Amino acid sequence: MAESTNDQVVVLRAQDIATIIHGVGLDRLMDEMILAIRNAAGNLDPDVTMTMERAGFQYDKPDLGLVEWMPAMELGRTVAIKTVGYHPSNPIQRSIPSVLATTSLHDTSTGALQALVDSTLLTAMRTGAASAVATDILADPKSSVVGVVGAGAQAVTQIHAISRVRPIDRVLAYDTDPIVAGTLANRLPLTIPVDNVDDIGHLVGGSDIVCTATTVDIGGGPVMPDVVHRPHLHVNAVGSDFPGKTELPLSLLRRAMVVPDDTEQCLREGESQRLRADEIGPDLAQLVKTADAFEPARGRLTVFDSTGWSLEDLVAAELMIDHANRLGVGLRTNLQSLPDDPYSPYGTLLGVDQRD
Amino acid sequence: MAESTNDQVVVLRAQDIATIIHGVGLDRLMDEMILAIRNAAGNLDPDVTMTMERAGFQYDKPDLGLVEWMPAMELGRTVAIKTVGYHPSNPIQRSIPSVLATTSLHDTSTGALQALVDSTLLTAMRTGAASAVATDILADPKSSVVGVVGAGAQAVTQIHAISRVRPIDRVLAYDTDPIVAGTLANRLPLTIPVDNVDDIGHLVGGSDIVCTATTVDIGGGPVMPDVVHRPHLHVNAVGSDFPGKTELPLSLLRRAMVVPDDTEQCLREGESQRLRADEIGPDLAQLVKTADAFEPARGRLTVFDSTGWSLEDLVAAELMIDHANRLGVGLRTNLQSLPDDPYSPYGTLLGVDQRD
Repeated sequence: MAESTNDQVVVLRAQDIATIIHGVGLDRLMDEMILAIRNAAGNLDPDVTMTMERAGFQYDKPDLGLVEWMPAMELGRTVAIKTVGYHPSNPIQRSIPSVLATTSLHDTSTGALQALVDSTLLTAMRTGAASAVATDILADPKSSVVGVVGAGAQAVTQIHAISRVRPIDRVLAYDTDPIVAGTLANRLPLTIPVDNVDDIGHLVGGSDIVCTATTVDIGGGPVMPDVVHRPHLHVNAVGSDFPGKTELPLSLLRRAMVVPDDTEQCLREGESQRLRADEIGPDLAQLVKTADAFEPARGRLTVFDSTGWSLEDLVAAELMIDHANRLGVGLRTNLQSLPDDPYSPYGTLLGVDQRD
Repeated sequence: MAESTNDQVVVLRAQDIATIIHGVGLDRLMDEMILAIRNAAGNLDPDVTMTMERAGFQYDKPDLGLVEWMPAMELGRTVAIKTVGYHPSNPIQRSIPSVLATTSLHDTSTGALQALVDSTLLTAMRTGAASAVATDILADPKSSVVGVVGAGAQAVTQIHAISRVRPIDRVLAYDTDPIVAGTLANRLPLTIPVDNVDDIGHLVGGSDIVCTATTVDIGGGPVMPDVVHRPHLHVNAVGSDFPGKTELPLSLLRRAMVVPDDTEQCLREGESQRLRADEIGPDLAQLVKTADAFEPARGRLTVFDSTGWSLEDLVAAELMIDHANRLGVGLRTNLQSLPDDPYSPYGTLLGVDQRD
């Protein structure tokens, strides 16, 4: 089948993502991702950037899980659609991550597929980067202790990202599985003492910043108690992403300034689903746009309600494509080949035309 | 990065689809697709098969178009998500098809991406196959003349598919672009006389089966007049797929038995959007399940309201994957590679672990 010249799809496999990270450096790439998300949020123009709440199929056969899609568009440029599989039993039953993801980028000049980017690692990184954006604006500048409730894959990128914006020198870690908490230090891309704690109350009380990143069941929250905490405590609540699935005590939420990543989505499936509209603060875009106004918030209790925003996925995928093009990394293939004659779907398949 | 053994994604590029078609034969593959869609519709159990109406971004910058997604699930087995770009100006301005599509298949045991299938040709084929399923039940058995209003890519697969279920020996073709109508015969995978007609009324009056497959603008319909026609006329209305975009005269629709592929979607963006609920007949699944009951309908005016059903895309992609596995066709790649430690997103990227 004859090919036109513009039908090359760039495929970034896991190995390509790894090559890019080796080339750019993990810290620098995280810094770039934090900056890119901050810029995307800060420059957000609702007439140009459009995101849709995720939708998906949830199922309980053969196992509890869901496959969902998260679409975003930059008008005149690209549509990104991340497809995500979420299977909380994956790590224990199959030794694979609970979140598996791929992002497709589509050219809005033609509707053609442009790129496909493995996004399992990127999802963890961009979730960390989004927390870093909120943390950088809302957390006390001297914050040095991060507590993580849930010490799995997301905890790694939360701690990494936050360490890029605050002088973190100690981690307090709790996980329902003590083995997972015990291995956290070895999974971090920075050398930092990690204290495993049995008492989540001590973790909350001793932290400047807390990240909750659990796979708590629907209705199984809260995953931490509402105890005495530092007055400037900032919480990144990362795990809630489903109606009925929340991580924080309602009393704590009600005392806090709550910043949703995407207000509509958070009202449906974030911590904010338990709040009234007037109990919810500015969204991430508004926070970034008027960051200076939130200086006083650094001294009080704040919560970033992070359900995962499709704009973050668009930004992360495009950042990797830029590096891939610069470094010559990735598989280029005529996935979505274009026939010579747009009106002839069978094209050269037809006997009369089988010339090449 | 170490790989587990089950992380191979099967990628069927355009060239792989062509290889499969050469191996199986175009007629046989179309027959299989017709049968597979008929079986999927006939065996449809709403507790097992779940489809969602398509959703998407429409835009008018840089050009009028949309990118949309069409999800379907077979519970306990797979989720299929077809992403579709639709740019009506593609053929004339860019010499590429107006509809470009890719289908991803996701394993509902793990949430992992299983396969990615170029679906530009498959979309045209499955749309033809769906019309053949409806035509086989609703059209007069002796139907020999097909009229096509719109002679582009979809007309080719409509005629091909219908020729597999009815003794078609003549095509009447109309297109707003006479050059497109004039080349139709050469684009068909069967040798059959094609008469280009200037008067759509003559086309409608002289056909046993009419297929409308146009890129009519929103509000630009109808694309054919309501004139005297054969009493048993069956119409496959393929082009309406958007609120306000319809192809048939309302008076004709109201006289006909109208069979939607997916009732909710058709009420929103098919011919059925102009009808009341009580003016709409059984859906395609109901039609197939109780096909014998519709024997009398073969003598009267019937319309298949085909907006494109995500179940058809799931069926088409799985059929191709089956052939690809049997024939050893396709690219197998560790697109969505899985780390050794599900809790360690950076895995072997970490210095301490850079052993392989």
